[in-house]
Amino acid sequence: MLQELQQFAVDTRRKFHTVPEAGFTEFITTFEIYQLLQNLSFHLYIGKEIMDSDERMGLPKPEEIEASKERALAYGVPEAFVEKLDGGHTGVVAVLDTGRKGPHIALRYDIDGLPIIESDEEGHAPFDEGFRSKHSQEMHACGHDGHISIGLAAAKYIDANKEKLTGKFTIIFQPAEEGLRGANSIVQKGWVDKVDYFMSGHIGINALQAGSVAATANQILASTKFDVTFKGKSAHAGVEPNEGKNALNAAATALLQLNAIPRHRDGATRINVGHLSGGSGRNVIADEAVMLVGTRGETTELNQYMYQEAERIIQASAAMYDIESNISFMGQGLGTVCDAAWIDIVKEACQNNSDVKEVYDVLPLKASEDVSYMMDHVQKNGGLATYMIFPSLLPAGHHHPQFDIDEEAIRTAVSVYIDVIHYLQPTIN
Amino acid sequence: MLQELQQFAVDTRRKFHTVPEAGFTEFITTFEIYQLLQNLSFHLYIGKEIMDSDERMGLPKPEEIEASKERALAYGVPEAFVEKLDGGHTGVVAVLDTGRKGPHIALRYDIDGLPIIESDEEGHAPFDEGFRSKHSQEMHACGHDGHISIGLAAAKYIDANKEKLTGKFTIIFQPAEEGLRGANSIVQKGWVDKVDYFMSGHIGINALQAGSVAATANQILASTKFDVTFKGKSAHAGVEPNEGKNALNAAATALLQLNAIPRHRDGATRINVGHLSGGSGRNVIADEAVMLVGTRGETTELNQYMYQEAERIIQASAAMYDIESNISFMGQGLGTVCDAAWIDIVKEACQNNSDVKEVYDVLPLKASEDVSYMMDHVQKNGGLATYMIFPSLLPAGHHHPQFDIDEEAIRTAVSVYIDVIHYLQPTIN
Amino acid sequence: MLQELQQFAVDTRRKFHTVPEAGFTEFITTFEIYQLLQNLSFHLYIGKEIMDSDERMGLPKPEEIEASKERALAYGVPEAFVEKLDGGHTGVVAVLDTGRKGPHIALRYDIDGLPIIESDEEGHAPFDEGFRSKHSQEMHACGHDGHISIGLAAAKYIDANKEKLTGKFTIIFQPAEEGLRGANSIVQKGWVDKVDYFMSGHIGINALQAGSVAATANQILASTKFDVTFKGKSAHAGVEPNEGKNALNAAATALLQLNAIPRHRDGATRINVGHLSGGSGRNVIADEAVMLVGTRGETTELNQYMYQEAERIIQASAAMYDIESNISFMGQGLGTVCDAAWIDIVKEACQNNSDVKEVYDVLPLKASEDVSYMMDHVQKNGGLATYMIFPSLLPAGHHHPQFDIDEEAIRTAVSVYIDVIHYLQPTIN
Amino acid sequence: MLQELQQFAVDTRRKFHTVPEAGFTEFITTFEIYQLLQNLSFHLYIGKEIMDSDERMGLPKPEEIEASKERALAYGVPEAFVEKLDGGHTGVVAVLDTGRKGPHIALRYDIDGLPIIESDEEGHAPFDEGFRSKHSQEMHACGHDGHISIGLAAAKYIDANKEKLTGKFTIIFQPAEEGLRGANSIVQKGWVDKVDYFMSGHIGINALQAGSVAATANQILASTKFDVTFKGKSAHAGVEPNEGKNALNAAATALLQLNAIPRHRDGATRINVGHLSGGSGRNVIADEAVMLVGTRGETTELNQYMYQEAERIIQASAAMYDIESNISFMGQGLGTVCDAAWIDIVKEACQNNSDVKEVYDVLPLKASEDVSYMMDHVQKNGGLATYMIFPSLLPAGHHHPQFDIDEEAIRTAVSVYIDVIHYLQPTIN
Repeated sequence: MLQELQQFAVDTRRKFHTVPEAGFTEFITTFEIYQLLQNLSFHLYIGKEIMDSDERMGLPKPEEIEASKERALAYGVPEAFVEKLDGGHTGVVAVLDTGRKGPHIALRYDIDGLPIIESDEEGHAPFDEGFRSKHSQEMHACGHDGHISIGLAAAKYIDANKEKLTGKFTIIFQPAEEGLRGANSIVQKGWVDKVDYFMSGHIGINALQAGSVAATANQILASTKFDVTFKGKSAHAGVEPNEGKNALNAAATALLQLNAIPRHRDGATRINVGHLSGGSGRNVIADEAVMLVGTRGETTELNQYMYQEAERIIQASAAMYDIESNISFMGQGLGTVCDAAWIDIVKEACQNNSDVKEVYDVLPLKASEDVSYMMDHVQKNGGLATYMIFPSLLPAGHHHPQFDIDEEAIRTAVSVYIDVIHYLQPTIN
Repeated sequence: MLQELQQFAVDTRRKFHTVPEAGFTEFITTFEIYQLLQNLSFHLYIGKEIMDSDERMGLPKPEEIEASKERALAYGVPEAFVEKLDGGHTGVVAVLDTGRKGPHIALRYDIDGLPIIESDEEGHAPFDEGFRSKHSQEMHACGHDGHISIGLAAAKYIDANKEKLTGKFTIIFQPAEEGLRGANSIVQKGWVDKVDYFMSGHIGINALQAGSVAATANQILASTKFDVTFKGKSAHAGVEPNEGKNALNAAATALLQLNAIPRHRDGATRINVGHLSGGSGRNVIADEAVMLVGTRGETTELNQYMYQEAERIIQASAAMYDIESNISFMGQGLGTVCDAAWIDIVKEACQNNSDVKEVYDVLPLKASEDVSYMMDHVQKNGGLATYMIFPSLLPAGHHHPQFDIDEEAIRTAVSVYIDVIHYLQPTIN
Repeated sequence: MLQELQQFAVDTRRKFHTVPEAGFTEFITTFEIYQLLQNLSFHLYIGKEIMDSDERMGLPKPEEIEASKERALAYGVPEAFVEKLDGGHTGVVAVLDTGRKGPHIALRYDIDGLPIIESDEEGHAPFDEGFRSKHSQEMHACGHDGHISIGLAAAKYIDANKEKLTGKFTIIFQPAEEGLRGANSIVQKGWVDKVDYFMSGHIGINALQAGSVAATANQILASTKFDVTFKGKSAHAGVEPNEGKNALNAAATALLQLNAIPRHRDGATRINVGHLSGGSGRNVIADEAVMLVGTRGETTELNQYMYQEAERIIQASAAMYDIESNISFMGQGLGTVCDAAWIDIVKEACQNNSDVKEVYDVLPLKASEDVSYMMDHVQKNGGLATYMIFPSLLPAGHHHPQFDIDEEAIRTAVSVYIDVIHYLQPTIN
Repeated sequence: MLQELQQFAVDTRRKFHTVPEAGFTEFITTFEIYQLLQNLSFHLYIGKEIMDSDERMGLPKPEEIEASKERALAYGVPEAFVEKLDGGHTGVVAVLDTGRKGPHIALRYDIDGLPIIESDEEGHAPFDEGFRSKHSQEMHACGHDGHISIGLAAAKYIDANKEKLTGKFTIIFQPAEEGLRGANSIVQKGWVDKVDYFMSGHIGINALQAGSVAATANQILASTKFDVTFKGKSAHAGVEPNEGKNALNAAATALLQLNAIPRHRDGATRINVGHLSGGSGRNVIADEAVMLVGTRGETTELNQYMYQEAERIIQASAAMYDIESNISFMGQGLGTVCDAAWIDIVKEACQNNSDVKEVYDVLPLKASEDVSYMMDHVQKNGGLATYMIFPSLLPAGHHHPQFDIDEEAIRTAVSVYIDVIHYLQPTIN
């Protein structure tokens, strides 16, 4: 049965690859996941049942959500289904309670694509093999198509073995991981409140031969993503320069000062203003400027240090020019640490797994992931959480128009999840 | 006959008001001017005959020119005519040589509109009275529609009196005054090489009751308009911040430093960065930034001081981050001074003009005008040049979506040009 | 008698030239003035009688005052006299009331030297002719030694003619003009409350042949002088850079931003940070920085604009680094305008003055002078005030170690003051 | 004998504590070391014999050296001796060759004090117990007095056992460690060319109970210390602000930009501008500014990255204002790593040492030390080098006016050096 599930995951991944949708607009994706799950024995939850609306961050503009809804309707998603997801309440939570005493195991898979135009050059496998994105402005350029499919294969495995398994299974298909926007809204709804074992993971990341797994990841960086708007007052720059309140000056001041936040004794920190735009005509004092900022830290505390410094600097930069500034949170990830217990769990679970050539204790993620909210919550409640990595050689890096994954990594992941679920069963151990 | 010409000018202004075209895309405008002139006795010149292509500044993007051509063809401008103006060679020069000994009088009228969306609110006369712009993105928001019409009325007067007048008349319908982009290309083609009397002017500007004229303007500021592009190198801001070369940092540095160019002993100076935009994703070090800059000075020397300081600052800001900077000239105006002789000329010419309630010696322009290139050239060759102002109360300032002119100012201007042309005739004085 | 007074002024100037004392430390100077006045019929006032202590600005450090007192004692000034001036209450006000009905005429002369080391090179007349400063660190490098002497000559003239003159005469020998520190404290004590005619002036300034006078000066700039202290928190820059609050960063930020205060529509403005110093060891985050700032404006309002912008920028720069800033006022001058009536007064008064080859209506001062407080006060109370200029060719500019004056300008000034005093007598006109 | 040497070291430390001398002015210190060594069997080298003059960095001003020489003469150092050290050639190298085959062991002790005024408050042991600094401006605030004494005790031990020991011993009493100025000049003279075992170390550093030793230190940071001078052009800030070239502006720009050098992927970096001073009078555009800068990096490469960025930024900041900049190197330390072999060496050597309660494998230095030049040189030539730490509880941090050491750490250090020397003897092992 494993091979069937592996093949299912690979095939399904290619289907999802053709219909990538950016965070909080995964209408087609949610529908297709729902369709594939509804013949199984899981209770399925969608829409506002799965997330606290107000805890979502970095929502798309209403017109972007609307356009995605239109696209989903044209694709064939029933209107009633789309309406349940209205306002960007995408994603699915699937729960199966065996009724038998046993652990509560939660699995989490992120489902969103990226606003990247996929390569249409020869040599890019999805193009060559006919499963390139059908959406002109979006692409599964991070591998979440694979994650969805692995999650569906795991669901099929649990369903097929529901009479033998014990405890409870919660599978979370999370929207809007990119930008660190969706996870916390699901946590706040209580879905991981009483979880004994929490597993998630990523394919790719470390460019190693597929067929291996890291039992845990480290360097899961805390991060805060926010937009800053400066509002000043325009004036004719030639006639009355003293009458303006220059929003571009404030933004430029903030940008330079943000780069100069002191390094921290306790470890690595980062800040970047990735985009800045402001002003209008050449001879008009700019009355508005917007910048996109992200901070990071090796730990939640270090990221918090960066953010607090940034906040003060932004306010002072606005005060410097007697103008207003406004910060909008767009996403956030915590610094988090996998429980070391997983090293033995995964190693032992996979010791007879022929698809796994190597089990690494740990590999670095070197990035932020909002799964950290879930892991943090599980750990605070006494559960064990890990974030595994399933390496793959990569023709191009994550978020690149030519990103692609060695599908062998998908097969490996399916086998690892199944083995670990199996291993965690008390009746077996 | 004066009243007829005045009424003609007002009516014609309303027609031109409906088809505004931004600088170097005045295909319809040029065609309509040409049509109205072609039954008169002027020799008409268009296309590359009237301007030195390479001396134009701030050309629109090819696709903008192309879109305007398409619009002109749809409007009914013959394809052959449009082709003569290809590449943005818009405008008309009309010459009438009486064959009789007398002065060479040149008149200059600017013809371009602005990329402003005209108001469609009640109370805005062009909307209420049905001559609002038909072009969704452009508007005659500075009064150049009136200038065209005044120029055409002057042409009709000269033509009607060609048997009595002496000397030579050159009427320049100049494209792309906005942004100070078109005048010098016409000067360089020699059209004002041997001019005895040069007149141009503006309606509005000073919000005074219509029915007056300023014989001369002062505070015609020198100005240089340029775009700056910074090119750096992107890198992942989290993973390897040291690998980037941050173009936004360079731009922000330049912006702040440009504002700090020292004031100058010799008089007023100005600088403004009206627009800045750069970078891409939040977590990517920005590899490009563009800013729109303008300098001004009370004199050409003061403006030159500002520009030279700016140039050094921009280069140093790029060097600060080890990146490249590039400056593109987008427009330039000289500091210029009207010949005081015009005060008596206009006063005496208009002493019996019942449309003119007051002749001011001088009113301030407080802005830049590329007519300065023409005036400067005429003066260097021994001619007399002036820039008159025909005030009007203004419901909203120049370049505003609700800008409008009291058409009385157009009538006044027609009468003044005619009277002065008449007065300058040697046989009459 | 005029020639005698002129010669007295020249001789006396040379004496004062040898003992320059900086503002509020003019112990010797005050004593010598007092000595020369005490045989005349003026009532003499010194110490706290002449100034409101709290209105003085930019006082020297106590140890500097103390050192100057010691020097004065060593010079021979009686201890009792020095004590009356304790705390820097230097200067003399001399009042002579004729008892006869007539105008109240006030004359003001500034008496302080500068902390400049006088040239000891040949060709510098005070050196060559043996009246170079005996004080190693101070010099009369602005001509106030001449002003004292002119004022003493005027006093002698008034005293000699006290039986013929009418009204009241107040002669103010003001300390601490340099830095704009002393005048307002005298105004606040009421000495110019009821003045009909107020005269002051400066020798030199305009490098024109001596023997002329400007009846009025213009371009008397408003100015505010202040020191800024930033206080942060030191930390080891290597071990815990995040623990510091960097005062030098705040100062540098303020400095650059101050230079970028927008130019003002209404006229010329200036700002300068002339000195900045902060920090301690190379590897310690700076916990303190101090900077010396001056603003100027063509008018009091323009200066006020500059100061208010500066104040906000300084506070925001401190807030940027979470530190404290403190502003200490060190001196202030108003923008002021001489009453035009003086043009006729001086011209008519001097029409038979053979020492005056030319009377200019007005010459520019292009600097700040705290006499503006006095002029402003007199004018607000209905009096007429002027600031005259007595040009001189200058081997080196004011405040230069080789500054010197053509003593002919002193002679001219003596004659002008006498003639104007004479002219202002009602019985004579 | 050990206890005698330990007591000698403690007593001697107190004597040296009273006569601290800053780097390259250790005339008294050198003399006293020399005196204490000259009855032993070492060959002693001083003056230009021990260092390459040109490789020294951060020399004091000539007048500072001169004043220290005067002080030494007054103290009783013979003039001939002082003259040998002229120009700041302080320090001693002592060599004892046993003539027997065996390893070349080098020991290095730094000898300089700091320009810190020592506390005279009760509770500060050196004050309470009468060995506070007799030099009003200098203090042994880092423990080098202890280092000297430990080195002298080691010398006494070697001398006493010279008949039993094998190989060669070089003891370096190095001047000017503070500021990282002296070590390289000694390396360049060849003293550590052929060393088998190199040991140095520091007392204090880690605030742990005295009586322990770290066999090695890590986090010995690379560092570059340099001064920057900006030279511009002064001008009257009111009259002609455009004529100045503002050195303070350039310095402030550099300061802020230096703080914004991007963090580096490969590890921790630091930069600090500890002091900035520039300009003169409030109303004069500053023509000169000086700043003191230090960079650091976890590795020599990271420090190099920081320095290279800094260099470009400084040049660009000068170019921004069209002025000159000049960088003077003041000190440099390499990033260095102790040979791990020392962990076993020290542990085994001390296993019977009752003064040593614990041997740490490694403790962090978290600072720079120019011993790194020596260690690097020894290692490149195949020798083994370590830098040990002898912890002590500290009433106040290093470089603090109340810094003091638990003298137990000195006793511990003496015992460790002796044990390790003993252990390294081939005949013994």
